[in-house]
Amino acid sequence: MQLPSQLLENAVAEFAKLPGIGKKTALRLVLHLLKQEVDEVSHFGETISKMRKEVQFCKRCSNISDTQVCSICSNTTGRNQQLICVVENIRDVIAIESTQQYNGTYHVLGGIISPLDGVGPDQLNIETLISRVKEEETKELLFALNPNIQGDTTIYYIQRKLGQTNCKVTTIARGISFGGELEYADEMTLARSITNRLPIEQYVR
Amino acid sequence: MQLPSQLLENAVAEFAKLPGIGKKTALRLVLHLLKQEVDEVSHFGETISKMRKEVQFCKRCSNISDTQVCSICSNTTGRNQQLICVVENIRDVIAIESTQQYNGTYHVLGGIISPLDGVGPDQLNIETLISRVKEEETKELLFALNPNIQGDTTIYYIQRKLGQTNCKVTTIARGISFGGELEYADEMTLARSITNRLPIEQYVR
Repeated sequence: MQLPSQLLENAVAEFAKLPGIGKKTALRLVLHLLKQEVDEVSHFGETISKMRKEVQFCKRCSNISDTQVCSICSNTTGRNQQLICVVENIRDVIAIESTQQYNGTYHVLGGIISPLDGVGPDQLNIETLISRVKEEETKELLFALNPNIQGDTTIYYIQRKLGQTNCKVTTIARGISFGGELEYADEMTLARSITNRLPIEQYVR
Repeated sequence: MQLPSQLLENAVAEFAKLPGIGKKTALRLVLHLLKQEVDEVSHFGETISKMRKEVQFCKRCSNISDTQVCSICSNTTGRNQQLICVVENIRDVIAIESTQQYNGTYHVLGGIISPLDGVGPDQLNIETLISRVKEEETKELLFALNPNIQGDTTIYYIQRKLGQTNCKVTTIARGISFGGELEYADEMTLARSITNRLPIEQYVR
């Protein structure tokens, strides 16, 4: 695909760098922007650059924020500051926040221990988590990591690092997902959901 | 979906304005950019704004260009300047150029006559086409418009406006597409392909 303008070609190349956007989609987006007002497109460009330049990471929980301490960490009345939910990345924070069922704080690890991908504990925000738990005398640490070997390794590692504390350590429940069908569930999930069965009065829809 | 940062929210909103990009995809793109270097993201923003600000439309054929006259119009040796291909938009120019089978020039109408969408001849680059054909003593006008009522109306309108000239008027062939199957072709296409049948020696693969 040869384009009649170098400027157009550069813009297409920039869009095509984004994940899931090929050269044809990039061209469609650029031709769409070409039809917009100059000011609008400048605003588009500036908003994106500004976001990257000015966005901050909360120095307490590493969540994304507009300020040094994020809105969840600074909300001492509405949020239980002694409950920390440990997640892999910002996307998980957004997912949990949209349930509107969680009123504690977060700690974003920035990844997960995965030797195969060359990610060790030192690249993650684990040290800050340990010292945070000790200094703040956290009451509960809730792990909300993806249910796989890497997730379990990370939980195990952090738990050992933590050593002897009064902090309760929990993990989100594994089991048959709501709306799922028993016969299609994998054996491991089904087995765990039987082992960890709940008294019916605890089962809240 | 509530985001923990206004800056992030603004960036997501900008991406979500693009065609075919919803809020979830926009978030994925923004989180990807967040992982890139500040300079890289600034470059992304600047390239897009610059493209919109500096791109020009060739004053002869209205094709997109980096200069006042596009590279096709200014190429007097490699391109037949007396053959004009009339297309609806820039995307069609790109499509025809990628075939590498056409060596004439273009004229981009910027749309097609469509009373239902409120597009009349005055909004299109038809006047400039007419005067171009007369001034440059064009030998052939090749219509490459989409095969529908609007396309046919546009061809008819331009032909009447043109009046009596020595310019030959042609249109791209309609027929069964290469690799297509006869039984699935619509009746109109099949009927036309029979009416406009070609002597076998003209049929070049």
